[in-house]
This record gives sequence, structure tokens and C-alpha cells, in this order.
Amino acid sequence: MNSDIVTQKAALAVDQNRLWDRIQAMGALGATPKGGVNRQAFSPEDRAARRLLADWAGELGFAVMQDGIGNLYVRKEGTEPGLEAVLTGSHLDSQPTGGKFDGAYGVMAGFEALEAIARAGLSHRRAIELVAWANEEGSRFQPGAMGSAVYAGATDLDALAAVRGFDGAALVEELGATLAAAPDIALREKPGYPAFYVEAHIEQGPRLEHAGLPIGIVTGIQGQHRYRITLTGEEAHAGTTPHALRRDALQSALAIIHALNEFMQDPDDVVRFTIGRFEVEPGSPNTVPGKAVFTIDLRHPDAATLERLGGGIDGIAKAQAGRCAVLVERVSKVAPVHFDPRVIAAVEEESEALGLASMRMISGAGHDAMHVASRAPSGMIFIPCLRGISHNEAEWASPEDCAAGARVLAASLMRLANM
Amino acid sequence: MNSDIVTQKAALAVDQNRLWDRIQAMGALGATPKGGVNRQAFSPEDRAARRLLADWAGELGFAVMQDGIGNLYVRKEGTEPGLEAVLTGSHLDSQPTGGKFDGAYGVMAGFEALEAIARAGLSHRRAIELVAWANEEGSRFQPGAMGSAVYAGATDLDALAAVRGFDGAALVEELGATLAAAPDIALREKPGYPAFYVEAHIEQGPRLEHAGLPIGIVTGIQGQHRYRITLTGEEAHAGTTPHALRRDALQSALAIIHALNEFMQDPDDVVRFTIGRFEVEPGSPNTVPGKAVFTIDLRHPDAATLERLGGGIDGIAKAQAGRCAVLVERVSKVAPVHFDPRVIAAVEEESEALGLASMRMISGAGHDAMHVASRAPSGMIFIPCLRGISHNEAEWASPEDCAAGARVLAASLMRLANM
Repeated sequence: MNSDIVTQKAALAVDQNRLWDRIQAMGALGATPKGGVNRQAFSPEDRAARRLLADWAGELGFAVMQDGIGNLYVRKEGTEPGLEAVLTGSHLDSQPTGGKFDGAYGVMAGFEALEAIARAGLSHRRAIELVAWANEEGSRFQPGAMGSAVYAGATDLDALAAVRGFDGAALVEELGATLAAAPDIALREKPGYPAFYVEAHIEQGPRLEHAGLPIGIVTGIQGQHRYRITLTGEEAHAGTTPHALRRDALQSALAIIHALNEFMQDPDDVVRFTIGRFEVEPGSPNTVPGKAVFTIDLRHPDAATLERLGGGIDGIAKAQAGRCAVLVERVSKVAPVHFDPRVIAAVEEESEALGLASMRMISGAGHDAMHVASRAPSGMIFIPCLRGISHNEAEWASPEDCAAGARVLAASLMRLANM
Repeated sequence: MNSDIVTQKAALAVDQNRLWDRIQAMGALGATPKGGVNRQAFSPEDRAARRLLADWAGELGFAVMQDGIGNLYVRKEGTEPGLEAVLTGSHLDSQPTGGKFDGAYGVMAGFEALEAIARAGLSHRRAIELVAWANEEGSRFQPGAMGSAVYAGATDLDALAAVRGFDGAALVEELGATLAAAPDIALREKPGYPAFYVEAHIEQGPRLEHAGLPIGIVTGIQGQHRYRITLTGEEAHAGTTPHALRRDALQSALAIIHALNEFMQDPDDVVRFTIGRFEVEPGSPNTVPGKAVFTIDLRHPDAATLERLGGGIDGIAKAQAGRCAVLVERVSKVAPVHFDPRVIAAVEEESEALGLASMRMISGAGHDAMHVASRAPSGMIFIPCLRGISHNEAEWASPEDCAAGARVLAASLMRLANM
């Protein structure tokens, strides 16, 4: 069989119903009354999800392993075991009021690809591995994308020793208990880096749905800067204090945001500029606010543009702060990631071969692929999700789109595994 | 003695140290570590303050009475007991983290005026009465200015039967216990309205201090409208959602406030326009806010202007709400109060006669005089307070300014009592 026929066979062996049933079975672990999931990292629900995946893998005869940070691996051996594997995966942990698809879809699509390839009896030179990265969401233990960061060496496991969750739990204890809950799963001391990495994920944005396309070819992940701006003025009586004598922290904050809106204007609508948190003190209707704190989330796919825009914030804030003192703090900074042309081409061409219309796009959200890309040629496949809604119990992707993404993934994995 | 000599004698009999000591003694009841007071309405501390005032009055031989809502009266009889009295006073209750001067100053200044007139042996035709209005602050039991509102018939005592405090206490029980704690004080069934009312108070604003003047001649209390504006948009991912598809409640709120700032512009700096509370949901740095709620406190001394400005809010909010739904609710509305020209003139002329420089001004804050003015010719005397700070443990007025205000009050009461 030539390569094209093999990848097509892998794709066609994907079973939409089997995949959908697995997504639902996984979604039952930590299910919330509103149809979402609460399956935060290293929780009992997260452990149950890992157990379910390991059991499914065992039934099919795949090897199952876990590493020290709790990444869970499923391996389908290739015909040349000495070669580096091809890796796919995503995460099983969720936001506290998350959906069934964010992360879990990528793991289930990867597992479906493995099963489809196995059931179709297709051989491949490289092993194909599936990984469920630990603690991608970071909603319980900070930072997020912890498993892939440790894997890629961006974070040292020892540096996380003191981390405590928002619920007070110690990371080391909860991680230890999670690993100990699966004593049958072999520990992988030092996982090697793969030849290629492909991650499937819901888009978490509205562009594919808007364009009416089933597949997004992700060419990179935009960079992200986060800032916290603090205005300090003076509390004053709303009835007695003339405006000329006020040091109104809220009004200074608004003037800054107004100027930043202008500065961040982008006719191409690529700049992502968001004020997500805005708090004033004392928050009394008849008191002029003495303090205001707001956050800026700024993202752009181009590193130089991101630096230029982020670099302008401090000056604008100082110029517009009026009679208040202003403090601009950069909370975090992640550079844009560019995916590997070979992986992008593989996904794009397999998508086309399957008759699935696609568009190239930049990921607005961060993903585990961000870290893996620093160690291996990487790429991502997006599928549409209803109205772009994510991190929400109403998150939804159709069975057909889920299957389409898994088909492109299965075909791409086969192609890369034979490269 | 002609009138001018009598009023001067009353003013000169005011004892700065005695007044200051009384303010400090009163401030010791409910004293907080930071130098303020927590003496909320009908609390044990409030009862202690009432007891202290009643004891002082008893020592000087003044009659002491209380009415059904807990207003406490001290009466110095005039030479023509059949005439309506001249009334002065303010309140003894405080904010939970209030200062020693708000309210208490007016009661202490009134008591000092009574003692000064008594010790100077000055006679007056009308009785001079002092009142400590119950529950002006409203910080424990809503509404505030409760004692003066019931006195003036703006609120019915029966209508307050179901009121519970923020601490869960029933108003009727706490009020009953407060009255019962002073069985020696005669109950005044139906207090008559006075011939005149004069209230001394700290300015609670910075204008007198700014102008370097010891006395403010208060010509009225500005009207006040309160609004709550609610913007409903849609939560969205900060990294993935193009601006064109966002329904950002925070940005819509900012656009509205920006337009309102323009609309409320006032070169004379008389309009008081304050956004004191501003909240967004979900308040996550990487989520486009789906909801924003903010308050407007709008005040102006002129009823027509206040109506015009308040009436413009709804249209501006709707015009600027962008892709969000907007709801404008008027929470409360109080019309401006104009004080009586005779009382204004009495205060102004006595101030001038005492060589105390003054300016006419509108009260930015609400006071008990607001209600009394609907039943009797009324006026107020302001003294400066440090940097205009009030409703704050750091609230401060100098002994000299406290005495100056009490001198003007004593002289004005004598003049009005002989009218």
C-alpha cells in the first residue's frame, strides 16, 4: 500500500459512534448538573478519568505508562521500535465549571486514532503514542500546562514542591496519591521526545463555525502578555467633593482603558486586548473610589507586534492616570509559538485528501503543544465548537465534527509515523 | 441689652475646652483603635452616648425627653413657654468605622450653646431645645435619617415595624430596649414643630478648608438621584474571540461612562457625578466580561438641572451600550432642599458680627435638616474638617473651628429665640 492509501484507511476506520460514546463516558466522570464537568487536576474525578483511559488501553493491548508529574501515556508499538515515536494527546483535567470537550476531546480522538489503526491492522514504522498531559487547566494548581511544561523541561518538578491548590491541598500529596492510585501502571522515568507531536482540540473560538469549516489547521499559538494595573487615588464623599479636588481611581482607570482601546485598534482584528477583571474600592455608591485594579490580557501571533503593543502600556497608563498614582505590572509573558511546516502540511494535506474543508489559523488559547513545540516538530488540529463557547458547561461540539477531527488526526499520525 | 449684645454674650460664653472635652468624652463611647468610633444606632454604645448626654443635661437642670423613635430632647425653657421653641441638634449614632465629629459635633455644639447661654444668665423668649436625632447614619437600620423622618412625618413609625438590621437585629426590639434603658427620661408623645431649626455639622467636604474659612453658611442641601446600570453581554475567551464578535459588558459600560462624563461636564464644578461601585463578571483575566453593573450617584442643588441631567442617563446608556443589553434603574430620588432666608441671615450675620469669615454653600451630603426643613424654617452651620475626610476614623476638626461653630450657633439660637 502506498502512503495515501494507508492514511485513508486509518481515517476511514475511525468510528464516530465509538468516539462519541467515549467522550460521553469520560464526561460522566465529574459530571455537573448543567451538563459540564468538574474534573480538576489530581482530584478523585481526574484519577477516575485516568483509570478509565488506562483500562481502555489495556483492553486493546496497548502499553500504559505514567511519568513523575502524572502525564499518562498509551503506546502502540511500531515496526521499528528504535525510532522516536509520534505523539498525540491533550488533557483530561477540566475547569471547575468546564465542558466535556476541552482537552478530553483531544485525548479521546487520539485514542480513537490508535484503535482505528489497530483494528484496521495497519502497520507503521514509528510507535504512535497518546498522552494525557497532567494539569493543563491550572484551575486548582498553578501554573497550568504543568505536565507538558515539566515534560519539555520548561518547569522543574522540584520547583513545584511547595505548590498548594486554591483548595489548600499540597500538590506533592495530591500528585503522589494520583500516581499511587494506579500501581499497575509502569513509571516512565525519563520520557524521550517524539519525532512529531499533533494535538487535536476544540477551537474554543467562533471562527471555524463562522466560516462553516470542519477543520482548522493550526499554524501556531499566539503570544500572550498579562498585566495588572493599579490606580491609587483617594476616597472622598460623592456629595461634597468637587471634581477638581477628586483623585478618582475609577475615572483614571477608565481614561487609561479608553486610550489603550485606541492604541490597540486593529482593522484586521488580530490583536486580542481584554480587560477581564476590574475592581474598585471601597465600592460604595456614595464614595469616590480610592483604588482601582484591572487586568490586561494582550495576545498577538507576531512577537514583534506583541512586544510593541505591550511596551506601550506603561507610557499610556502614566500619561492618562491624571491625579492618581499608577502601577503597571507585567504578570506573565509567553512568546508566540510557530508550528512545524511538516506537521502543518501533513494535517492540511490529509484533511484535503479526506474531502474535509479547512482553514489555516492561529490558536488564540494556550495549549500543551506550546511546550512540546520547543522539543519536537508540532502541530494542532482544531474542530468547531458551538458558538465558540468554552470553559463553560455549555461547551459543545457535534459528533460529526468530532469524528472529522479524529479522521484527520488518524491519517496524519499514520503519515508522520511512516516518515 | 439689645439683641446684638445678647447674641455676642452667648457666643463669648462658649468654652472651647469644655466643648472639646465633651467631644472627646462622647468619642470614647464606641471608640475604635484607629481613633474613630463605632456607635451604630440603638447599639449599647449608642445607649451609652444618650445616657451621657441626658446626665449632662440633668446636671444643668435642663428637661430631658425622648420620643417613640428614640429622638432625645434637652430643653432650656424660655421666658414665654407658650411660644414654639428654637431647635438645634444633630445625631449621636455613627458609621461602623466613623469619626468622632460627624453628628456628635452638632449635638455637642448645641449642648455647649445651651450651657453657655445658661451660665451667662441670658434670658430668651422662646425655649431653646437640643435634639439628638435617632439613627441618622442608617448603617445598621435602613433608612438613614430615621428619627428626623419620623419626626417630620416623612416616614411612619408603624411602617418601620418589620425593619431588621444588617446584623439581623429587629429594629423594634433594639429601639424598645434603647428607650427602656432610660426609664427616667420622660416620653414625649407628639413633639411640636419648632419656630426655627439650626444644625451645626462638619462640612464633610474640603471647600471650607480650601478657602481657609472657619464657617460655612449652608443655604440648602442638594438633591440626589441614584441609579444602577446593568450591562449584559456574553462571556467569551479572551484569546480566541475576535473583537468584532465580542459582546463585552465592561467595554460597553466604559463607553457609557465616557459619554456620561461628557454630558455631566460642568465648568462651575457644581454637578456631582460619581461612579462608586463597578463590578464585572466573571472577573477572570482571560475571559471577556459577560456582565457589568455600576452605580451612579448624581447630585445638584437645582431641581430642574438635576431632573435634566438624571433624565439624560437612560438615553445615553442605550445609545452607547453597543452589542450589550442595558438596563437603567433609578434607585432613589431626593429633591433639593432650600433653607429659610431668615435662618440663613441669622447665621450669616452672627458669624460676621463675631468676626468669623464665612461663605455660603450648599450641603453635598444629606442631613436631618433635610426632613426638618419641611416642617420648620431651617438652616445649617458648617465647620471645616481636615481634608474633607468623613465617614472615616481619620475624621478631624480642630478645637478652634469646633468652638467657632458653637459660637455662631449660640448667637444664632439666641437671636432666633428672641424673634
